[in-house]
Amino acid sequence: MRKMVLYDTTLRDGTQAEGISLTVNDKLRIVKKLDDLGIDYIEGGWPGSNPKDMEFFIRAKRLKLKHAKITAFGSTRRARTKPSQDMNIKALLKSGCSVCTVFGKSWDLHVKDILKVSLNENLDMISDTISYLKSRKIKVFFDAEHFFDGYKYNPDYANKALQAAQDAGAEAIILCDTNGGMLTCELADVVLQVKPRINVSLGIHCHNDSEMAVANSVAAVMAGCDHIQGTINGYGERCGNANLCSIIPSLQVKLGIKCLSSAKLKELTEVSYYVAEACNMKQLDTQAFVGSSAFAHKGGVHVNAVLKKPQSYEHIEPQIVGNKRRILISELSGKSTLLTKARELHIGLRKNSDHTIKILKLLQDMEYQGYHFEAAEASFELLLNRQMKKHKKFFELEGFRVINEKDEDGCLYSEARIKVRVKKKIKHTVCEGQGPIDALDGALRESLVGFYPKLADMHLSDFKVRVLDEKAGTAAKVRVLIQSQDSEKSWWTIGVSENIIEAGWQALVDSVEYKLLKG
Amino acid sequence: MRKMVLYDTTLRDGTQAEGISLTVNDKLRIVKKLDDLGIDYIEGGWPGSNPKDMEFFIRAKRLKLKHAKITAFGSTRRARTKPSQDMNIKALLKSGCSVCTVFGKSWDLHVKDILKVSLNENLDMISDTISYLKSRKIKVFFDAEHFFDGYKYNPDYANKALQAAQDAGAEAIILCDTNGGMLTCELADVVLQVKPRINVSLGIHCHNDSEMAVANSVAAVMAGCDHIQGTINGYGERCGNANLCSIIPSLQVKLGIKCLSSAKLKELTEVSYYVAEACNMKQLDTQAFVGSSAFAHKGGVHVNAVLKKPQSYEHIEPQIVGNKRRILISELSGKSTLLTKARELHIGLRKNSDHTIKILKLLQDMEYQGYHFEAAEASFELLLNRQMKKHKKFFELEGFRVINEKDEDGCLYSEARIKVRVKKKIKHTVCEGQGPIDALDGALRESLVGFYPKLADMHLSDFKVRVLDEKAGTAAKVRVLIQSQDSEKSWWTIGVSENIIEAGWQALVDSVEYKLLKG
Repeated sequence: MRKMVLYDTTLRDGTQAEGISLTVNDKLRIVKKLDDLGIDYIEGGWPGSNPKDMEFFIRAKRLKLKHAKITAFGSTRRARTKPSQDMNIKALLKSGCSVCTVFGKSWDLHVKDILKVSLNENLDMISDTISYLKSRKIKVFFDAEHFFDGYKYNPDYANKALQAAQDAGAEAIILCDTNGGMLTCELADVVLQVKPRINVSLGIHCHNDSEMAVANSVAAVMAGCDHIQGTINGYGERCGNANLCSIIPSLQVKLGIKCLSSAKLKELTEVSYYVAEACNMKQLDTQAFVGSSAFAHKGGVHVNAVLKKPQSYEHIEPQIVGNKRRILISELSGKSTLLTKARELHIGLRKNSDHTIKILKLLQDMEYQGYHFEAAEASFELLLNRQMKKHKKFFELEGFRVINEKDEDGCLYSEARIKVRVKKKIKHTVCEGQGPIDALDGALRESLVGFYPKLADMHLSDFKVRVLDEKAGTAAKVRVLIQSQDSEKSWWTIGVSENIIEAGWQALVDSVEYKLLKG
Repeated sequence: MRKMVLYDTTLRDGTQAEGISLTVNDKLRIVKKLDDLGIDYIEGGWPGSNPKDMEFFIRAKRLKLKHAKITAFGSTRRARTKPSQDMNIKALLKSGCSVCTVFGKSWDLHVKDILKVSLNENLDMISDTISYLKSRKIKVFFDAEHFFDGYKYNPDYANKALQAAQDAGAEAIILCDTNGGMLTCELADVVLQVKPRINVSLGIHCHNDSEMAVANSVAAVMAGCDHIQGTINGYGERCGNANLCSIIPSLQVKLGIKCLSSAKLKELTEVSYYVAEACNMKQLDTQAFVGSSAFAHKGGVHVNAVLKKPQSYEHIEPQIVGNKRRILISELSGKSTLLTKARELHIGLRKNSDHTIKILKLLQDMEYQGYHFEAAEASFELLLNRQMKKHKKFFELEGFRVINEKDEDGCLYSEARIKVRVKKKIKHTVCEGQGPIDALDGALRESLVGFYPKLADMHLSDFKVRVLDEKAGTAAKVRVLIQSQDSEKSWWTIGVSENIIEAGWQALVDSVEYKLLKG
């Protein structure tokens, strides 16, 4: 079975993404997770460009990794500088990594117009750097930056750059589509042309500027590459890097090329979510293979078919990557969807019982009013529990009042007062907020946390508002969706009303009750 | 120059996405936008499956489109049913579309295990349906559902399904990767094999389950397809459909295959935003070509290089698709856009005047805070007028107070009190509403209508709320967009604040002032 070398650059190229910035602790956590998954090489940073990265390398040395090797990234030596005196190369040595990835220019335009050195000098810079690191017992991977653009305009020179790296002893040569502009068939063609000239490992490094980084990486493997560089969730500069979470299952499940053990492949969804959290990014629901919508089915025809024959609407079994099928409750769905969903939630509903018929009718009514349970599974679960009389009421509302006041000076002030009863105790709270829903959220949780301390562990993480019937303008029905999270999970709840405060209140109540129900 | 047929299914397949649900008004607005862009066919819905779609088709008939044709989607006839008596086919005819897209099975597994009819019966279902529609003067496109999976397991039968459609008179045959599981090189191979057998237009319809829908669509075109089906921003079931916003520029800019006029291609970024707003989805910053990060450069080396030679780190010029390079230091970006826009509004702004520089700086600040003037041109016009001191103040706010109160019986009551001054007269009004913004809207207009009777002629027609920084939960910044209309026109205004009431207030004030300005 063909085996792939997996090279992760989430910690280096991934952090070039807008909005991602990792602490050394975050990076170390991610290293452990990726090592555990079975990644072969983890690029930790660019010590010569970012002095903060050195702390990472020092602390990473103390990690006991099972399998992965940590690599440091750097450029070829500067023009007219000996490698031994080049700051960037000194930093590579100081990182203590036994494997380093060195990038160099292979596009003549960059050599002439950006570096402003002669074409031959650039080739010397590549050889010297690799030979020097080799002499210091460092294994070198060579990233041929802008290789594909270079090959398009001056194939002869692009090849010479690879040759220089190979002759100097690079252990792997990686073809980079740095600008991310290559089309898949063209890229595969170039790999096929280059492959016979290279007698070391050949790698691929793609960017997603044409939304083709995954396809390009897989096509490169089919054309002969055996080393893949990418990032978890495709994080990276501009439109991102090639997404390992999509490449790995495509190679392994569809082409039978070994990347991870089957047991570890089942952890891919969790790793994707873990890295998203560590990077403080929302994991994309629509992400291939690992997203929460990747195996979500809506609409009666599809749902019936997928329950009969999963392969009828699923390209792989979701369990293979640790994901799961989700049947969405929508206006198009009928009884079988409801029963399947109830089973998933371990709520016993029988096919023709009165309960089932009553709940189905209620759902249809609520969906007609604008509830949208596919987007709010926690509210759906609460609704089933309430209907099955399994629901314990955690508190009673005695009343609330939300005031928003603006005076001549233009300042706006929002305040919520709330009175709740838990068993026989009344709690009356007032809270300011940056808007009416925020004030209400603060007041509700403050009034309950004394009774239920675990509420301190949750917070709201997303908030969406949708107007349902445009014709009525601001008196239209409004749907509020709220996402809450604690240290372990996140959940969505919903409220619908003509009054945005009422809709927000319903979603807030469900958010808190779900936390209390699930612990 | 080779020319591509563009077929958009945002309104049908796109609405299968989790979290997207469009009103008829949303759909009509999107149709106008896509027609204006130059899309050839716009699939409006599935009238036989979703009764709500019929209203769309009735109202769409009244639209005056420049170029696009609206199509209706439906399945082949049921087994043992005459086409003329099939409800689904009746609904297609009732839609009034002169072009219909009919999908049929081409994977034997689906025929046997899902439809449970004989293989021959399915071929008859395809022919009968197409022949019948043709006899009613309807042009038919045939979507061969699951074609690639079918071809993998039983190529002979998959070909027969295409042949049946071709023989019955389909004007185009579309190969569908319904489960989205195909790898690019494999898919291109199949298209090459099928192409010689088809003598009508050959199309491609991809899903993104392997994160390859764009690459697959472009590869299919390179292998001979001349009809592309996809959605704006790749919206669609599970991981989405093929993203037209990535496919169009790849074909046109990189392969020289004509999709849109160059002038219209420049509107692609705006269309992407517009459709995202209409769907109430956040446009992905990292989206290829049209995302706000797609040409954003971070890090000194890249920035310097890109300023010297844009192609050093950009695969295409961002202007081609109406996007822009984003570099933190570029104070001057956007000036020509501002001047163009001012010219459109007949506001005289000179290129290097202090006014221009001041307004540009203000716009950049406001956009940084979350204002989004592409979606609210009325607010933009008011802002220019205010800055040019051409703006007359119609009223002064002395203060308002909005109260929302809920008591034990569960009823929620919203009331706004407002005090305004017009010249020297004070007017104090109180108004109930079905929510705080509605109450405020009522109170504001009631307090002003005595001074400005023409306000009686306007009302609010749409209201959208978007949370800008998801991580902050209910205390996040909120953008409110309000659409207003009178008997002649409609206009959008905007407000941004951490307090939804303040954001709504800003948009309401602009809404009223715009009406007073324009009469």
